[in-house]
Amino acid sequence: MKAAIFQGPHTIEVGQRPDPTIENPTDAIVRVVRGCVCGSDLWYYRGINQHKVGSIGHEYIGVVDAVGDAVTDLVVGDFVIAPFTYNDDTCPACQHGYPSNCEHGGAFGNGDIDGGQGEKVRAPFADTTLVKVPGAPGDYTEEQLASFTALSDVMCTGYHAAVSAGVKNGDTVAVVGDGAVGLSAVLAAKKLGAARIIALSRNPARQVVAKEFGATDIVEERGDDAIDTVLRLTNGVGVDAALECVGTDQSITTCAGIVRAGGMVGAVGVPLYEEFEYKTLFWKNIGIKGGVAPARQYIPELLDDVLAGRINPGRVFDYIADLDHVADAYAAMDERRAIKSLLTIPQQ
Amino acid sequence: MKAAIFQGPHTIEVGQRPDPTIENPTDAIVRVVRGCVCGSDLWYYRGINQHKVGSIGHEYIGVVDAVGDAVTDLVVGDFVIAPFTYNDDTCPACQHGYPSNCEHGGAFGNGDIDGGQGEKVRAPFADTTLVKVPGAPGDYTEEQLASFTALSDVMCTGYHAAVSAGVKNGDTVAVVGDGAVGLSAVLAAKKLGAARIIALSRNPARQVVAKEFGATDIVEERGDDAIDTVLRLTNGVGVDAALECVGTDQSITTCAGIVRAGGMVGAVGVPLYEEFEYKTLFWKNIGIKGGVAPARQYIPELLDDVLAGRINPGRVFDYIADLDHVADAYAAMDERRAIKSLLTIPQQ
Repeated sequence: MKAAIFQGPHTIEVGQRPDPTIENPTDAIVRVVRGCVCGSDLWYYRGINQHKVGSIGHEYIGVVDAVGDAVTDLVVGDFVIAPFTYNDDTCPACQHGYPSNCEHGGAFGNGDIDGGQGEKVRAPFADTTLVKVPGAPGDYTEEQLASFTALSDVMCTGYHAAVSAGVKNGDTVAVVGDGAVGLSAVLAAKKLGAARIIALSRNPARQVVAKEFGATDIVEERGDDAIDTVLRLTNGVGVDAALECVGTDQSITTCAGIVRAGGMVGAVGVPLYEEFEYKTLFWKNIGIKGGVAPARQYIPELLDDVLAGRINPGRVFDYIADLDHVADAYAAMDERRAIKSLLTIPQQ
Repeated sequence: MKAAIFQGPHTIEVGQRPDPTIENPTDAIVRVVRGCVCGSDLWYYRGINQHKVGSIGHEYIGVVDAVGDAVTDLVVGDFVIAPFTYNDDTCPACQHGYPSNCEHGGAFGNGDIDGGQGEKVRAPFADTTLVKVPGAPGDYTEEQLASFTALSDVMCTGYHAAVSAGVKNGDTVAVVGDGAVGLSAVLAAKKLGAARIIALSRNPARQVVAKEFGATDIVEERGDDAIDTVLRLTNGVGVDAALECVGTDQSITTCAGIVRAGGMVGAVGVPLYEEFEYKTLFWKNIGIKGGVAPARQYIPELLDDVLAGRINPGRVFDYIADLDHVADAYAAMDERRAIKSLLTIPQQ
């Protein structure tokens, strides 16, 4: 089959991988309909984080093409959303609602396991990993397909920032980071009832999406200037919650500087920070929670929201390429010409 | 008046300080009935943290001796508990329930401001700082007076660990640290409904109090061995919440190692850790929250518990001295002969 192959920094090529087959009775094979490029894929692309040569892409939606003997909840032809990690739903982490920490789980597209940037994927623990969407891909608009794809990771990750920070009705929330996760976090804060949402962004295209998603204020400054501005906007109080959607020392330091005493930082940016120390939060009674989003836990609820038209997270996609042009999809994001690239996978 | 004077590491002397007088119309003067020595006083005593030469002791209960013109809720003769910090109840931190972060507040016994290890204290913002106890000191048993004194800091701090970690009915909780705060955290976890409370302690006297307070399991190991034991006790799952009541790299690393995916660390140990990095928690979706306890916020509720006999936090005091023997009170704790020393202040 055709699939994107990560060959090393700045080198994504379209190549061939073996067609996946059922290896375990709990597996399903999914024919990918839409994939996309994640902000974390960019860290590999830029050589900041390491990635094995091989399969890549952990986000996808598709149609079930085959199922193992132990799969009971899915049949061939089912339309599904895959969370970016697979999970068995039996280990303690799964039982506590954190399938992304599943002891027997893993991430798609890690070099070995099939990725969402390819024609097919073997999905382990299919019953407890994949989430069924009613009907077939052809029943939905392009916009809806994009929103389903956003549920694979980025919308769940933004939601995880807001949930981890305990955002609730009437809160004042700041979102640090205007990538697709940051924008999704704005939408998540809105969904949870935040009365005021301050988005930190200096990019006009992203500001537009942030406002569509519910941002009430845009702050263009960075670093200490951003802290000053957010504090001024909140009459010196600070925000109830800051959603950390970048992962750098600057972004988490900004969060620490703008949260009121007793507030929360919701952290989902892959932590690249080196200097940040928790004790700076301790003295202000600020908490921090977050991590790798338990997407499988959130997808059913967020899918209901998408199907009902309450949220449109696919709005973060502003570049579309087919699988043959996956390199362009990366380049558009790397050069900040695109917020996030959607991949259409031509059906065989 | 007579008061303990911190003269430098290992040197606490009884000396003279000026009798406090009303300086601001919101002040009250409190005649101290009971004070005590805090674990954090020991950090000064041992030279680990810095303290100015002068007044010391931030915990006390007493009787109102004089009030300023603007004090409306207290009269001379009222029996009161002082939280270890004073607060004005008007700033954003106070309004959000974090009086210990009051913009206009401060701590008692910091070298300049009168301390609880002395005959009298000037209490700023008396109406919003001091908490009235019904009746007079003479109406209560020694045990009750000790429990009221414990509400000044240590019980509220233990409670803050449990509240910050979101401990709830049925939880499995581990308490790291067997000082007075750690023991209070055991009692707090029990109050909040924890079904299983694992206390880390290798001191027989402290184990006894931990069990009285509700500990179901005692773990004597430290470091990696403690992590292994707690994981074994919880069938490899880990605990829902770990309460960090020490503040060292070893103790917080232990907490990080024993909490299940998605669980919480409640942190109240004064942070002396240097190597701990939040990102170790991120990858397990573990959150951390805590800080300087908002004692004023908690005292009314905990006072009700003491008056109703539901909790007996004064049980942490196992050494009693009068003010003239304050040096012995420190030495007993420093040499770990005592969990916590109560100071009786002879009434003039």
